[in-house]
Amino acid sequence: MVQAYLDKGMTEPAVFEFFVRKLPETRGFLVAAGLEQALGFLETARFTETELLWLAKSGRFKDEMLDYLTALRFTGDVDAMPEGTVFFPDEPILRVIAPLPVAQLVETRLINMLHFQTVIASKAARMVLAAPGKALIDFGLRRAHGAEAGMLAARASYLAGFAGTATTPALVRFGIPIYGTMAHSFIQAFESEEAAFEAFARSRPENLVLLLDTYDTEAAAHKIVTLAPRLRRQGIAIRGVRLDSGDLALHARRVRHILDQAGLQDIMIFASGGLDETILKLYSAAEAPIDGYGIGTSLTTSMDAPALDCAYKLQEYAGRPKRKRSEGKATWPGRKQVYRAYREDGTMSEDLLTLDGQSCEGYALIQEVMRGGRRIGVPPTLTEARDLAAKEVGRLPGHLRQLETTPSYPVSVSRELRALADEVDRELAAV
Amino acid sequence: MVQAYLDKGMTEPAVFEFFVRKLPETRGFLVAAGLEQALGFLETARFTETELLWLAKSGRFKDEMLDYLTALRFTGDVDAMPEGTVFFPDEPILRVIAPLPVAQLVETRLINMLHFQTVIASKAARMVLAAPGKALIDFGLRRAHGAEAGMLAARASYLAGFAGTATTPALVRFGIPIYGTMAHSFIQAFESEEAAFEAFARSRPENLVLLLDTYDTEAAAHKIVTLAPRLRRQGIAIRGVRLDSGDLALHARRVRHILDQAGLQDIMIFASGGLDETILKLYSAAEAPIDGYGIGTSLTTSMDAPALDCAYKLQEYAGRPKRKRSEGKATWPGRKQVYRAYREDGTMSEDLLTLDGQSCEGYALIQEVMRGGRRIGVPPTLTEARDLAAKEVGRLPGHLRQLETTPSYPVSVSRELRALADEVDRELAAV
Repeated sequence: MVQAYLDKGMTEPAVFEFFVRKLPETRGFLVAAGLEQALGFLETARFTETELLWLAKSGRFKDEMLDYLTALRFTGDVDAMPEGTVFFPDEPILRVIAPLPVAQLVETRLINMLHFQTVIASKAARMVLAAPGKALIDFGLRRAHGAEAGMLAARASYLAGFAGTATTPALVRFGIPIYGTMAHSFIQAFESEEAAFEAFARSRPENLVLLLDTYDTEAAAHKIVTLAPRLRRQGIAIRGVRLDSGDLALHARRVRHILDQAGLQDIMIFASGGLDETILKLYSAAEAPIDGYGIGTSLTTSMDAPALDCAYKLQEYAGRPKRKRSEGKATWPGRKQVYRAYREDGTMSEDLLTLDGQSCEGYALIQEVMRGGRRIGVPPTLTEARDLAAKEVGRLPGHLRQLETTPSYPVSVSRELRALADEVDRELAAV
Repeated sequence: MVQAYLDKGMTEPAVFEFFVRKLPETRGFLVAAGLEQALGFLETARFTETELLWLAKSGRFKDEMLDYLTALRFTGDVDAMPEGTVFFPDEPILRVIAPLPVAQLVETRLINMLHFQTVIASKAARMVLAAPGKALIDFGLRRAHGAEAGMLAARASYLAGFAGTATTPALVRFGIPIYGTMAHSFIQAFESEEAAFEAFARSRPENLVLLLDTYDTEAAAHKIVTLAPRLRRQGIAIRGVRLDSGDLALHARRVRHILDQAGLQDIMIFASGGLDETILKLYSAAEAPIDGYGIGTSLTTSMDAPALDCAYKLQEYAGRPKRKRSEGKATWPGRKQVYRAYREDGTMSEDLLTLDGQSCEGYALIQEVMRGGRRIGVPPTLTEARDLAAKEVGRLPGHLRQLETTPSYPVSVSRELRALADEVDRELAAV
């Protein structure tokens, strides 16, 4: 495509927007994430010596194109919704304005970065809503789709309100609190469960959490009752216990009872193993005595909806609005803005999809973030994005906070935008 | 955990096995993949200077442990099923024997690598079965979970029988055939669809595939009829056209008719857009005139089953068999082997899960691949793994080749293995 653009001299500014066409059945809203990594990619995007050599050797491309790729840097403009913003179908969360070949070349990786973190942040936000007041920890690296997915899932879930992650490098890279625990294999390696508990306690006394379900959960809880006073005499406090199999709410009640009877009210109960927001909601409703949850696979693969129907589409080229007309995949042309209106109590009431530059009531969600390839201002920290997500999710209409997906949130399209779409259709028909 | 192992002097050999506990509802078999990357990881696994410095600075770990981590190299043994082998629940596809702390430290990344490629190869194998004789191309990088997932999905799907990928770097890294095509935005950027087709044809004449559905699929097919003779006079042949929206089988029939009427029988029809094995099977049954498919999201996220219930569990420590007893997650102890029996016509008839070293009828699936941290022999090439997968899938019982998941494939457990499990249970009860 780039070769053809260069052959035709088509290097005028192109406007692409990234948006989601429609929500998965089990989503009523999405949380924008991944912008920080997307902008980092644009700032540093270039072809390496090795890649250029390989392209040259392939013999498929003209010298003019190889020179173009050698010199290629992203010097375009980007407007976007800040990370943590709640958004809905058809609303662009990112707009790129750059020479057509450049805007096209960055497409795949931009989608790859925005899509995945948005998938995870949107899933994580549901879990946070389902378990109010509970500490949620990302346990999902092992079944994440590769190492990058594991790291970015730690980031996106923290952004959406998780308390931390078991993916240790996420502390160094993103400053995310890390939580470790013990494996069943650790317990199994010892001659007895008691010996394993005691060895772990002595070697890692801070924030001590012991795993109860390797053999028999309640029997293990009784061992904790015996162990706790002995450790206390050595100055070691058991912070919590973890359950990882069976009916977690039932085991939690029994373990809580065993611990409470022994005066161990301060030992917290953590649960993990096959959890998702549906189960969390059930446990919350049943007031299961669980203080925190470790959530793995359903989070880092977004099990029920591992992908979004998203697109990065050309909306304008060389000043002329463009529109794709494919069945079921038609797009709104031009540069767009989203205005959001709120009720008096602060909850969101409706969004309006308009042309950029149109002045409307409400709050404009899309902001300038990059001009001429350089970021504008200081980028928000991950903590700031996390605060924004909490605020945004807190402002959702009640039924969406309850994870009900109907009625869908109202997004209307401005008259001016409809008129522009009609105009583009008429022009296409006339060609 | 490592600190506690060192404090207790627990550095004897540990045996861990990686296996899948149960199949997702929509899978009747799995295809082992990811071993090559897993072994590459073990060969090079070490803590970097930066990581060691960070661990030291954290103040959480003793000098003895930091020294241990500094010197850490994987010098253990690995036995595994070759990539491309078909396998079933409870059958280990990889066994690691290494000092306990080392075998434990490599756990997360080993699972992360074996799990993902196995997920993708198993999904891809279903698509290959659903579309016999059709060229399937991986189009999924954009919605894969990160860049690593995109690259490894290209590899795993090729291993399972895909013809190639649109992820260009997979050619350089894995030697996988690459297939490019044009985007809707390319068409949109031009004043007319005809101009876009012609510009693309001139700039990229080899293997020319033109995208028909940006505005109106059949109208675009008529434009091809006009364009083809003109291009032919310039020595350019249109290899194929691609449909990406609407009822693909219906459009394919209409486009085939339009092309055939014009004597363009040699132009192939490719289809893409929201495809999975269910749709491929329908199109195959309906004999839709489609020659090849581009498959994205449902492949690279394994949409219907993005994760497997898999585990990497301690089966033996310091010569003593071990067993986890957790509810619904109990494991078979000891080092195991899988023997597969075949019918006279070559199809698989049943598997036997036994103790390693037991001599049984059938073919032993688990082979030696690494000793003392070094690989044994020349590793199979990706093409060899791909050939094995084709052979293995071809030997599945008929109902599994038809993608029916019941009855499940019979895997029995040997008397000796059951006896060992009972023995471990008795020992645990006696503690």
